[in-house]
Amino acid sequence: MVLSTVGALGATLLPAVAAQPRPAAHKGKAEALSGLVSLDDFERAARERMATMAYEFVASGAGDEITIRWNREDYNKLKLRPRVLVDVEVLDTSLELFGQKSDFPILLAPTALQRLTHPEGEVETARGAGVANATFVVSSLSTRRMADIARATTTPLWFQLYGLNKERHGFVRDVVQEVKASGCRALCVTVDAPVLGARNRQARAGFRIPDVFETPYYPERVGAKTAAGLPILGGFTWKDVAWLRSVTNLPILLKGILNPEDAELAIRAGVDGIIVSNHGGRCLDTLPATISALPAVAEKVAGRVPVLVDGGIRRGTDVLKALALGAKAVLIGRPYIYGLAAGGATGVSRVVEILRDEFKMAMALTGRRTLAEIDRSVIG
Amino acid sequence: MVLSTVGALGATLLPAVAAQPRPAAHKGKAEALSGLVSLDDFERAARERMATMAYEFVASGAGDEITIRWNREDYNKLKLRPRVLVDVEVLDTSLELFGQKSDFPILLAPTALQRLTHPEGEVETARGAGVANATFVVSSLSTRRMADIARATTTPLWFQLYGLNKERHGFVRDVVQEVKASGCRALCVTVDAPVLGARNRQARAGFRIPDVFETPYYPERVGAKTAAGLPILGGFTWKDVAWLRSVTNLPILLKGILNPEDAELAIRAGVDGIIVSNHGGRCLDTLPATISALPAVAEKVAGRVPVLVDGGIRRGTDVLKALALGAKAVLIGRPYIYGLAAGGATGVSRVVEILRDEFKMAMALTGRRTLAEIDRSVIG
Amino acid sequence: MVLSTVGALGATLLPAVAAQPRPAAHKGKAEALSGLVSLDDFERAARERMATMAYEFVASGAGDEITIRWNREDYNKLKLRPRVLVDVEVLDTSLELFGQKSDFPILLAPTALQRLTHPEGEVETARGAGVANATFVVSSLSTRRMADIARATTTPLWFQLYGLNKERHGFVRDVVQEVKASGCRALCVTVDAPVLGARNRQARAGFRIPDVFETPYYPERVGAKTAAGLPILGGFTWKDVAWLRSVTNLPILLKGILNPEDAELAIRAGVDGIIVSNHGGRCLDTLPATISALPAVAEKVAGRVPVLVDGGIRRGTDVLKALALGAKAVLIGRPYIYGLAAGGATGVSRVVEILRDEFKMAMALTGRRTLAEIDRSVIG
Amino acid sequence: MVLSTVGALGATLLPAVAAQPRPAAHKGKAEALSGLVSLDDFERAARERMATMAYEFVASGAGDEITIRWNREDYNKLKLRPRVLVDVEVLDTSLELFGQKSDFPILLAPTALQRLTHPEGEVETARGAGVANATFVVSSLSTRRMADIARATTTPLWFQLYGLNKERHGFVRDVVQEVKASGCRALCVTVDAPVLGARNRQARAGFRIPDVFETPYYPERVGAKTAAGLPILGGFTWKDVAWLRSVTNLPILLKGILNPEDAELAIRAGVDGIIVSNHGGRCLDTLPATISALPAVAEKVAGRVPVLVDGGIRRGTDVLKALALGAKAVLIGRPYIYGLAAGGATGVSRVVEILRDEFKMAMALTGRRTLAEIDRSVIG
Repeated sequence: MVLSTVGALGATLLPAVAAQPRPAAHKGKAEALSGLVSLDDFERAARERMATMAYEFVASGAGDEITIRWNREDYNKLKLRPRVLVDVEVLDTSLELFGQKSDFPILLAPTALQRLTHPEGEVETARGAGVANATFVVSSLSTRRMADIARATTTPLWFQLYGLNKERHGFVRDVVQEVKASGCRALCVTVDAPVLGARNRQARAGFRIPDVFETPYYPERVGAKTAAGLPILGGFTWKDVAWLRSVTNLPILLKGILNPEDAELAIRAGVDGIIVSNHGGRCLDTLPATISALPAVAEKVAGRVPVLVDGGIRRGTDVLKALALGAKAVLIGRPYIYGLAAGGATGVSRVVEILRDEFKMAMALTGRRTLAEIDRSVIG
Repeated sequence: MVLSTVGALGATLLPAVAAQPRPAAHKGKAEALSGLVSLDDFERAARERMATMAYEFVASGAGDEITIRWNREDYNKLKLRPRVLVDVEVLDTSLELFGQKSDFPILLAPTALQRLTHPEGEVETARGAGVANATFVVSSLSTRRMADIARATTTPLWFQLYGLNKERHGFVRDVVQEVKASGCRALCVTVDAPVLGARNRQARAGFRIPDVFETPYYPERVGAKTAAGLPILGGFTWKDVAWLRSVTNLPILLKGILNPEDAELAIRAGVDGIIVSNHGGRCLDTLPATISALPAVAEKVAGRVPVLVDGGIRRGTDVLKALALGAKAVLIGRPYIYGLAAGGATGVSRVVEILRDEFKMAMALTGRRTLAEIDRSVIG
Repeated sequence: MVLSTVGALGATLLPAVAAQPRPAAHKGKAEALSGLVSLDDFERAARERMATMAYEFVASGAGDEITIRWNREDYNKLKLRPRVLVDVEVLDTSLELFGQKSDFPILLAPTALQRLTHPEGEVETARGAGVANATFVVSSLSTRRMADIARATTTPLWFQLYGLNKERHGFVRDVVQEVKASGCRALCVTVDAPVLGARNRQARAGFRIPDVFETPYYPERVGAKTAAGLPILGGFTWKDVAWLRSVTNLPILLKGILNPEDAELAIRAGVDGIIVSNHGGRCLDTLPATISALPAVAEKVAGRVPVLVDGGIRRGTDVLKALALGAKAVLIGRPYIYGLAAGGATGVSRVVEILRDEFKMAMALTGRRTLAEIDRSVIG
Repeated sequence: MVLSTVGALGATLLPAVAAQPRPAAHKGKAEALSGLVSLDDFERAARERMATMAYEFVASGAGDEITIRWNREDYNKLKLRPRVLVDVEVLDTSLELFGQKSDFPILLAPTALQRLTHPEGEVETARGAGVANATFVVSSLSTRRMADIARATTTPLWFQLYGLNKERHGFVRDVVQEVKASGCRALCVTVDAPVLGARNRQARAGFRIPDVFETPYYPERVGAKTAAGLPILGGFTWKDVAWLRSVTNLPILLKGILNPEDAELAIRAGVDGIIVSNHGGRCLDTLPATISALPAVAEKVAGRVPVLVDGGIRRGTDVLKALALGAKAVLIGRPYIYGLAAGGATGVSRVVEILRDEFKMAMALTGRRTLAEIDRSVIG
């Protein structure tokens, strides 16, 4: 599949992906990362190491990237209301989702084409996820097979699904069977990206999927279009959700819900969870920040299924705020890709560990000792 | 007509308009434009190709250009509320205005003196409008005759009218007859510009209409002033609207309404449509953004006549928002002029096509399949 | 009087005031000013021509200059609500204040030490005020005598009063008699500056009044301090107002009222007018913008006496907004000083004329033909 | 104690602290400071003179330093509502706290490790505090003994307490006895810092406490961690407060209260005062600005104990606003450290005097003559 028209610029840049030297970072050693103390530090380090086209693919969003900005700003506007003089010697950050236990409420979101960032792609990410003990959601646009990814890690794996355009049910059923056989323990169905949006920065960088990459769960290489002439990314409809529900007993989460009315429909369709997401600001600009859309969705869901959220999380205080406003857990995307670029598996695990430790600090400094104590009263 | 006093600087710059080389762009070939993927890209490309005075004339606004900024900002502040899992394979963007069918709700607004931007002026714009199948509203300050413009295109043409100072009724009647004979299908009467505003950037650039330009529908070349000593641009009064209504059966739209009370008067005066406009921020600074003025006007009009809106539209999401807040269609001005500068007719059509495609993406990604489905619920 | 401690830097800078070349500008010819089309243009031009210490004295404010910023921003936030299709051929901007007729509602505010800006000081300003036909309020910190100022102009003169520390009643009575004899037609009593504020930029520039300057209406040269140790600028109390009321029949305005309760007291004290002012942001930082303080004061006064306003007016739309929110007229300070620096008397008159013409444009483009038609409905 | 992991960079920087030349500033002469007229001037001067690691330690905050920004911004958003024509010749800024009389409501907040800033550390600060007659709150992380500090000054001393991790009651009791014997007249118990926060700038600068420093009231040098794995700074619990109350009759203030519910608990625990503080933005980012948290705390406390506030105070108007919103007095931290860096004891006293004089100006220019007259009506 070609994600955008490739001009001369794109053709020139492509070899750079393969030729790109990644010296220190890919030794996977902790020393090279010792000066990186926040998630934003990893972005700066990654930017220096990534090929321009790869960085542009990862960092960019739709349109004028207003939603990307809001995803951060809206977290930064929320004020915390601490309790003091609480004994915070012991903190419990563990949770259970669909019968799976996690040490902390941070997952790795599905992100596409990780071989752009690291020669080992999703396999290397899985190694880092294993070290950090974080659930890793593999993307439909994975450049590695689930079996290889699963072999590299002990961490739980989930899988993200796009509904492709043609013969989708048969293909999707095969994919679901394969990933389940490889240990996948939940499915995230992306619902916010039937078509590609205005990915201007990608187009300017001449982005296209390098020919040498396999995308076994996203086989179409032609720039298919809808009847309306729009480039397909991968849409489902409510009917397809019902069908998917009927062919698998894996937990199904819908990823990309912002509207409480869609959350209600999702529950009626029998899904097991909801991910409040705006696709990292990559599909439609001026969608609201996810942290601002979360409260109304969580209120509508009212605990019937777990609600997760992604988008813009860079600080432990963001995790705290997301949980305070109704999320059971959060997913991070770009940050761990920057970890992958800066230090391979070690970079991935460091990113998760920094965020986890900041989250614990935020709990301690607001006087909350368990996830259950993180409620609306945390927000001032 | 002299739009402002010309100092030494202006005289120096004028020859540059004729001498200005416009190499690649004016071959009218698509390749030169292939890197331009958003409307803002066209502005950047145009700025490099345009004579300073021409660019300043097009880009500038009144006073401190606060209204120009608001025209953009107020769109950017509006958040979208999407619906997901809708089947958006097929989208219908067609509409009908005054019995005229359009494929999509985007028109080319009247803009003055297009020979400043391209040697062929309005004729070249009409060619591009024809390719894109967009209605083109020709300005009273056109540098080409309607007959020539009409010959260059199959697209519907409308005409914009200023009420000139002297002998206006006779002259206006002649103009209306001529443009109607050339195929004009609607009249836009500009109501927000009886006098010129504080066009500081134009004055600093020494702007005046080059002597070699004909302006057949705006013959006065002298800087006429009102009794109050203000430079006339071209005012009407409610009486003149009534008179115009009596002498033509063409649809009449009033362009420049921001106040709902004026919208009510317009309907009582028997006009066929209203264009919410602040003249692109060119006349009076700190007028509100049009997208913020639109809802109250649309509510007052309550569907009795179609309401259109211009000003600040640069993204498909802006079109979606304008329709959601009550507009039947939108007009773009500066963006297609930048297309004209960057690539002649091809540039004009590309600008329209990019905006149209972004609009379709915005429909698909908010789950709206027809214009009728674009209502207030789109805004979050 | 020393307005602030003078360090080594100040001593170095002082000769620059005298030595400063003011070539083109002080020929008083219009050509040198032809490129200056807005009040901000005059500030830029003046800054280049003024000695640093003089510019710092004029431009600077108290503290972090937040009030200076608000004085502008709060105008820029107000949106206009126009009426269209009104016949604006004829506009009437005339008014009457205390029996004095003016062509337009713009006065020249009292500003100190004009010889810093022009060798002729207040006399040159008076010439420009005469050309523009604007009332000029001479400051207590004038460097010229009222008789000399009056001889240079036909424009009405007012006088601003500080209450000095010692023997104030006798001295003030003498000053009032002298200025009245020279044609002064109203007194503005400054009430917001009993002491100097934190004039950091002045202090950093080593500002002090040059020894060669006479300040006949502000004779103290020693840095007198209050019992609380604060540098005196010149305070009155309500008792002093009562006394002044008893010794002159000139109209008395209190300048520096922001609190409606003080406006009420002022009326009870028998004053003839109120000037809403924050001393141009020069005395106390984070006082509110005058345009934001105006409505509550005007509402409390309820037409019993005229309310004027100064601070931050740079555009004709600002004048319109001030009148819409309850002011009978406005005063400008720094802008005409920049005119004085850039072009002597001609610069002063050009500044007034630009603002007056912009005000007329703003009336025409909002459809208001007289000052009486400028009411709250102008603000959107 | 190591406050953060020291990498190679830190080791390199450490010698710079000792070697750092502090020529003019540490002569303690007033001339070197004559150009510094505001507290921000002292920061600029200090930054030039301080070792990078020391400056980073002092200036930095937690996370993205949003709280540090809010601490300033929220003061700057508050508008003053002045009264005019009041006789402000005499002002009374005196107050009494816990039976101790002060000339003005400004104290020196506890700040750590002052030998980083000046060779004499807290002893030099105490000299400056004595000159300015300001109460000085010595930190648990003092690098000098209370006896030495007390000998250097006549100013009242308070002491700040951290609850350390092991054997805390015995050690704390000893500390309390020692500081009381040295003249300490009140205890401030820090309640908002059980663990260190995300001090990224400190970590990037490789900060650690130089080995040559003694910290007699904070003996642990090992980076102790909580059971949850977080670096301990020094937590108390409500039980510890009750114990402390039982072993000393010194006034106890809790420092770090932002939540009115904690203020209520504090009063029930028998404390004598509350300091609204967010630890200068150093512990948890996106805690609210203290001036914005103050009103609700003051309202809950309702005068039962005095409420103080620190954080972001840089101007006399800030002191006025804090008192208007319910504080009895304010504390400044970084500003006097910058004074210490720029000019030793003289710098400390100058910083206090500038702020005190600005506070008096603010009183005079709002027409308030005593602290009692500074109430909510000062805020517009």
